[in-house]
Amino acid sequence: MTMDATRAPVTPVVPSRGRLRPLGLGEVRILGGFWGHRQRVNATASLGHIEHWLEREGWVANFDLAAAGRLPQGRRGREFSDSEVYKLLEAMSWEVGRDDDEDLDRRLRALVARVAAAQQPDGYLNTEFGRPGQRERWSDLEWGHELYCFGHLFQAAVARHRTRPDADDGLVEVARRAADLVCRTFGEGGIESVCGHAEIEPALVELGRATDDRRYLEQARLFVERRGRGTLRDIEFGRAYYQDDVPVRQATVLRGHAVRAGYLSAGAVDVAVEEGDDELLDALAVQWRNTVARRTYLTGGQGSRHQDEGFGDDWALPPDRAYSETCASVASVMFSWRLLLALGDPQYADLIERTLFNVVATSPSHEGTAFYYTNTLHQRRPGVVAPQTEASPRASTSLRAPWFAVSCCPPNVARTLASLAGYVATTDDEGLQLHQYAPAGIRTALPDGRPIELEVQTGYPADGAVRVQVLTDAAAPWTLSLRVPTWAAGARLVDIPKEGEPTSRTVRPGVASLTRAFCDGDVVELHLPMAPRYTVADSRVDAVRGCLAVERGPEVLCLESVDLAAAAASVGADADDVGMVSLDAGSPPRESDGAVVVRLRVTSPEGGERWPYAERADPASDVPPATFDVPLVAYHDWANRGPSTMRVWLPVAP
Amino acid sequence: MTMDATRAPVTPVVPSRGRLRPLGLGEVRILGGFWGHRQRVNATASLGHIEHWLEREGWVANFDLAAAGRLPQGRRGREFSDSEVYKLLEAMSWEVGRDDDEDLDRRLRALVARVAAAQQPDGYLNTEFGRPGQRERWSDLEWGHELYCFGHLFQAAVARHRTRPDADDGLVEVARRAADLVCRTFGEGGIESVCGHAEIEPALVELGRATDDRRYLEQARLFVERRGRGTLRDIEFGRAYYQDDVPVRQATVLRGHAVRAGYLSAGAVDVAVEEGDDELLDALAVQWRNTVARRTYLTGGQGSRHQDEGFGDDWALPPDRAYSETCASVASVMFSWRLLLALGDPQYADLIERTLFNVVATSPSHEGTAFYYTNTLHQRRPGVVAPQTEASPRASTSLRAPWFAVSCCPPNVARTLASLAGYVATTDDEGLQLHQYAPAGIRTALPDGRPIELEVQTGYPADGAVRVQVLTDAAAPWTLSLRVPTWAAGARLVDIPKEGEPTSRTVRPGVASLTRAFCDGDVVELHLPMAPRYTVADSRVDAVRGCLAVERGPEVLCLESVDLAAAAASVGADADDVGMVSLDAGSPPRESDGAVVVRLRVTSPEGGERWPYAERADPASDVPPATFDVPLVAYHDWANRGPSTMRVWLPVAP
Repeated sequence: MTMDATRAPVTPVVPSRGRLRPLGLGEVRILGGFWGHRQRVNATASLGHIEHWLEREGWVANFDLAAAGRLPQGRRGREFSDSEVYKLLEAMSWEVGRDDDEDLDRRLRALVARVAAAQQPDGYLNTEFGRPGQRERWSDLEWGHELYCFGHLFQAAVARHRTRPDADDGLVEVARRAADLVCRTFGEGGIESVCGHAEIEPALVELGRATDDRRYLEQARLFVERRGRGTLRDIEFGRAYYQDDVPVRQATVLRGHAVRAGYLSAGAVDVAVEEGDDELLDALAVQWRNTVARRTYLTGGQGSRHQDEGFGDDWALPPDRAYSETCASVASVMFSWRLLLALGDPQYADLIERTLFNVVATSPSHEGTAFYYTNTLHQRRPGVVAPQTEASPRASTSLRAPWFAVSCCPPNVARTLASLAGYVATTDDEGLQLHQYAPAGIRTALPDGRPIELEVQTGYPADGAVRVQVLTDAAAPWTLSLRVPTWAAGARLVDIPKEGEPTSRTVRPGVASLTRAFCDGDVVELHLPMAPRYTVADSRVDAVRGCLAVERGPEVLCLESVDLAAAAASVGADADDVGMVSLDAGSPPRESDGAVVVRLRVTSPEGGERWPYAERADPASDVPPATFDVPLVAYHDWANRGPSTMRVWLPVAP
Repeated sequence: MTMDATRAPVTPVVPSRGRLRPLGLGEVRILGGFWGHRQRVNATASLGHIEHWLEREGWVANFDLAAAGRLPQGRRGREFSDSEVYKLLEAMSWEVGRDDDEDLDRRLRALVARVAAAQQPDGYLNTEFGRPGQRERWSDLEWGHELYCFGHLFQAAVARHRTRPDADDGLVEVARRAADLVCRTFGEGGIESVCGHAEIEPALVELGRATDDRRYLEQARLFVERRGRGTLRDIEFGRAYYQDDVPVRQATVLRGHAVRAGYLSAGAVDVAVEEGDDELLDALAVQWRNTVARRTYLTGGQGSRHQDEGFGDDWALPPDRAYSETCASVASVMFSWRLLLALGDPQYADLIERTLFNVVATSPSHEGTAFYYTNTLHQRRPGVVAPQTEASPRASTSLRAPWFAVSCCPPNVARTLASLAGYVATTDDEGLQLHQYAPAGIRTALPDGRPIELEVQTGYPADGAVRVQVLTDAAAPWTLSLRVPTWAAGARLVDIPKEGEPTSRTVRPGVASLTRAFCDGDVVELHLPMAPRYTVADSRVDAVRGCLAVERGPEVLCLESVDLAAAAASVGADADDVGMVSLDAGSPPRESDGAVVVRLRVTSPEGGERWPYAERADPASDVPPATFDVPLVAYHDWANRGPSTMRVWLPVAP
């Protein structure tokens, strides 16, 4: 199917072809609920918080210094700090498009003006390179992040262009001048290399789509094709760190730095779609499949190594040393969304849902002013409260921190939340597909022009009922499709036509569809089974052998030590010592007073002062262990009640 | 007890006081067996190999360039490369002392001359710092490694001084001039800081002991006392990385970079012993206990993090990401040996034995020309053959490599093996203690002057019988003590006096002693039970839940995939996929044809192409899994038969 490229939805990704067509922020509006609340916190707290810290750390002022010709003296932040300003610009742009906040638009324009003033006449724009006393342009493609920063600049410009095409702030022009320079410098016959941190690839395609300029797409294609051919220097982590070890179309799994891998994959799907390159698209689908099957945490998190912020070997998924960088989850959503649009398979929307609820939603605090950079699945020591007035180290899996020395994650979460409505639904020639469930208003048209208006009402994920009310009359049949998550065995689809009897049927995981000429007033309900369930991992995930996790709907749950005080007191143990509990797996998880409760056996741990390995002997305890019913919390809610230890995977009592 | 400080045994450590007195290389000689073979390979292959690579990489030539005034141009290697030359000098010195190899002595002198020529008039000696065009001296205490390099220089000088006190090669004088400079520069009123990498602390104490100069001891004391007070810059890993977070006498467990932590602890014991500082000694004993109980691998390996080559939290001991750096095991042996001398508790010798057999002996290949830098306990992918003509990355847990870009481990193993006889036995006022079992000749005297001569005959660890033959007549009773390892429940001590009936008794783990006026011809035998045994970990070591390891005597065993071909073929699996096997734990490990054999259940793994987490369901397999009896190998022998996957911890079949 080929889309009508003249209709440009206000959405993060607008491919010119693919199985599904994205809807814009003007076509889908989240109207509250879990994600509506997150969007509100993002708009009212996180954006201002990020803006404040970017000023405070001097990362915006770097542009002022550049414009005043005063660099390199006084420059602050790491070599990629420009990109955080661009990501904030992107987040602000989506938010202005979502909510028409004039004050925010004013702040956005002011920031754009400061950025634009630092651009050099030939289009170059970077506060770290290229001036007397600084390193030369493009002199450190491995670590310099110049093209990476441009990528985020372009994504900001695309967001602005799609939400305020008539804005006269110059952001799009700044991006185009920079992109033109990139094409002149890195095109055929130019520097035959790539950036150590992929990101410009999807950004160039999107900028090309937004501005209808095929040169940018061609440059993205060159970058994707060059990657994996060893043009970057070998390093101690190996060239796999920046995916320069194997050409994209020959790779079979994601590897190396997880954020780099995700951004590259997203850009490669964009190139494959625009070029009609099915070989490349197939290769990326295989990489996605193998990565999801063997290198992804239960939360959807990716990256199990602190050392290189990277993927480990197949099955190496330690919960306690999960890196699961927030940015890697954003990159994973980008990759999955593009494959969903291109191929239509609901498995991609499944992973997006899992990743949004269990990583993207986990990073920000309830207040939206502190963030996780990494997202561990097992915290053995109570976190320490992060410094509130200085930037924190990025990977201390402790309490959320207001800011990091490397602070890529907060603005990445912000831009994702601000544009989240774009991931809710799509259309194709036959009808409309709902991928994510949130209270929402949808007003769009099928490719043939037929208008469709719907309202989605749901308390999901607290509640499993999703009610879709049709608000338009159709002259001819169309298909309403609802994703049934993989975990939702036993889901039911209830058809409640305005005229006639309701019918109900069980639907299998995948997609449940109804085709007819829907009338204004028709209702379709999807009932997803929300009973909490025990989940077990493939036996090759060695690090969680003998453990179960508890999930409820799309949410992964966890045990937090703040809920263990009574149990700990009963055995005279430290409440933070989650080593004292094991799961009575004979007792299924149950819901009680709105919480999921499990039965734990509690024993006072012995030892810890002698050699911890002993000859196997039969356990011979006469004293039955104490049992306690203890509530779990959603993983995304953890560490909002002060320092605590935590486990997602609970050891099963022998 | 106070030792006679005028007797200076030819041994790595010579405290002036302590529970036990070390014996020198001239007093104990290893006469073959497991360690004798390793010493021979070290002498005939490893030393030359290391010398060759130091030349090839230009790390010796750096000294020539310095002497010729041509630095900084042409300098090669990392900022600490000088130290590898010093460690080789130390290894050569011990080896010359052990075996009187004149050719080796000549090579040693030639190297010393090249080093000495680079020393500056005031004693400074470092090829990376201090010349025009180089960074200033002491300008980067965090990462510069200048004092660290001096530490290894001093240890080389101590080894030379103890083995060839009359050598006129000038090595001791070079070290003294450098140490004098250190005292002038870092003494009271000087630079009030420490080196980012501890090492000079034990070296200064030893140099002070060897040269009878208390200034060096005082300087070591200052360095130990200053550590932990935050004089070094904070870094992303935190100051714990270089133990600058908590003063040594206040710490309760080792943390941060494992090699740094071990060297510092060794030096702190040295200081505590020389100063009679029991508070400090007690603190170090507590740190040792907690580290061994909660932060040490079954192999004795320490350090579970690749990111910072460091200790993780208590109980965080993943086998697949074990860093377990070879150098950390050398540092651990240094720390334990000093505590053994000071306190006499056999637990320290237990850990030394475990660490020597399972890490120090694991690093070098059978040929002695390739090494492990890290020592993983679980290899999921077959290693790739390391480059033979260039330095390898240090932490690729793959096959052993001939050399590393950071090549601290090969010369560290070499100096340990060359001085190994020093760890076999000690004396005290009452008699002689045997700590490690190897065929050995011992000729020493008790502090009161009574001569003792013994011969130890044993095939240990292949065989559990240790036969000690007394070769001297004693006028008065003395005590022969033999360590009974913790794992050796049911050990028997057999007393076979030259005159009279043999008697036999069961002895408990700890120390088994016999006291009498031994005669020439008396024999004492220790019979250690060598049946292979299943070992289970404390339940808080999450990463090996549901697994057993197999040990035999002091050796940890492992399953290597090269032994799985038949089992794999039976289920149509890849022989390298150790995910297909689980242990039939109902069948005890048994010995067959000299190998330890376990029974494995083998199933073809399914999945790997879909989401690996599923709702728990009862397993309902009708087909009983195939079982195979498969031999294990000693962990130290693994990866000597080509690329292979490997597991120490074997999952128990449900």
